[in-house]
Amino acid sequence: MERVDIAIIGTGPAGVSAAITAKVRNKSVLLIGSRELSEKMSKAHQILNYPGLPEVSGADLVAGYKKQLAGLGIEVTEKRVNAVYAMGDYFGIQASGEILEASTVILAAGIVMGKPFPGENKLLGSGVSYCATCDAQFFRGKEVAVIGYGREAEQEADYLAEIVGKVHYFPMGKEEPQLSDAVEVVHERPKAITGTQTVSALETDAGSHPVDGVFILRDAIAPSQLVPGLATEENHVKVNLQMETNLPGLFACGDITGKPYQYIKAAGQGNVAALSAAEYLDKKKREI
Amino acid sequence: MERVDIAIIGTGPAGVSAAITAKVRNKSVLLIGSRELSEKMSKAHQILNYPGLPEVSGADLVAGYKKQLAGLGIEVTEKRVNAVYAMGDYFGIQASGEILEASTVILAAGIVMGKPFPGENKLLGSGVSYCATCDAQFFRGKEVAVIGYGREAEQEADYLAEIVGKVHYFPMGKEEPQLSDAVEVVHERPKAITGTQTVSALETDAGSHPVDGVFILRDAIAPSQLVPGLATEENHVKVNLQMETNLPGLFACGDITGKPYQYIKAAGQGNVAALSAAEYLDKKKREI
Repeated sequence: MERVDIAIIGTGPAGVSAAITAKVRNKSVLLIGSRELSEKMSKAHQILNYPGLPEVSGADLVAGYKKQLAGLGIEVTEKRVNAVYAMGDYFGIQASGEILEASTVILAAGIVMGKPFPGENKLLGSGVSYCATCDAQFFRGKEVAVIGYGREAEQEADYLAEIVGKVHYFPMGKEEPQLSDAVEVVHERPKAITGTQTVSALETDAGSHPVDGVFILRDAIAPSQLVPGLATEENHVKVNLQMETNLPGLFACGDITGKPYQYIKAAGQGNVAALSAAEYLDKKKREI
Repeated sequence: MERVDIAIIGTGPAGVSAAITAKVRNKSVLLIGSRELSEKMSKAHQILNYPGLPEVSGADLVAGYKKQLAGLGIEVTEKRVNAVYAMGDYFGIQASGEILEASTVILAAGIVMGKPFPGENKLLGSGVSYCATCDAQFFRGKEVAVIGYGREAEQEADYLAEIVGKVHYFPMGKEEPQLSDAVEVVHERPKAITGTQTVSALETDAGSHPVDGVFILRDAIAPSQLVPGLATEENHVKVNLQMETNLPGLFACGDITGKPYQYIKAAGQGNVAALSAAEYLDKKKREI
């Protein structure tokens, strides 16, 4: 297989945006991920803060992305990437048993979530949410549970309490959460999320809590040990404002670079990563 | 006037995105800029790399932004911001002669295209001004030059003509300015501002115009002049990945933070700035 200019790993908004800008910038692109682009995104009921597309559903945004990629002649290569090796002049990408080659690589693989709760995947977008900012509005006057993994989850729970009817907070950490009085802390261990069409209850080790929604607010877990030698910071890839990592020719964008986990932020960073990769390539070409 | 949670200066994609996310995040928002949002953007023929909106025209994207702001109940306050002062617990925003108050500020004012005129920096405050509303009074009965960059500059020139002795208007755009009869339009290219202690003349490609003051009315002011104490780097506001500046509670996003100058990157950064401002506010609230 021919060596491409820019390999992009990941097909969420960061990877899609990087591919679009790289192609417009006239570079050859290898986009590795899922032809469905992003399962998480396609299940997002409504995205309230994507400028230019008010109240767009995740499914519609994914459909729009697909159409835009097709219009630019960008195909998705469906492979699972196991490792990326910096070879000096290029990168070797170990993917589904093959080694692919690229002059530059953009990591847009998102973050690794923990093991899902029983019912979590099934009810994602139907009462299960990962983002208070995005979905609070849908639970006005209703009861929700928050499964919180840290400080930021507490802030989101406080915010939720301003909008929804009632918030039950299930702390997953060892420290006592700091929350406003409006939030009820429940010291029980979540076990499963139940419901047929939509969420009806959160089951714990001590009983069942009838709720309309469950917000699972995890901290990012384990950065991909995908690239040997890659500098990380608190489980995220360390980047600067140009989306450069510590490895020349390797860039990162989207959730993998850290919070906030937001679609429009990921799309913006993907654009910057692609332009930085293009600039890196152009500079290298001039040096030859 | 009541103190708002988040004041956003600028109505390009960065400012609009910040306003949308801040509002969704349930903060009170003061969005200062133009009701037309961005003249530059609305003139963009076709934007090829805005994910989700293939080949969108600048005018259509601006129209979409306007609709989205209206849908969220966000109004644009049309004022010219001359300075932002960190007051410890809040910010004072000097805008069109008024002082507005905000707990946090997001700078999304774009970039100043072009270099300053020779003499501009030296004579700033000694005859050179960026604000007709603020400084017209000092030129009663005197002659001034206006270097005008757009529609808003024309309005300020008309206002100046009501106060000062004589206004000579040097249009920097391609379109013929619409001005009252009291303003004399001069079709010459400004080259430098001269004077020892104070302004004595505006030099152009065609000659010298003796004046007591020169009003330079650009769409954006250099960030270091806008906010005393703000750290900059090559005329851009220095930010980290969370869009924090060196001043607590002050954030920046979009072109003002540096290259690349791209719509989707600006929108992404605006989202991050708004969430950082919201987090800052929530943290401060808990400390009280």
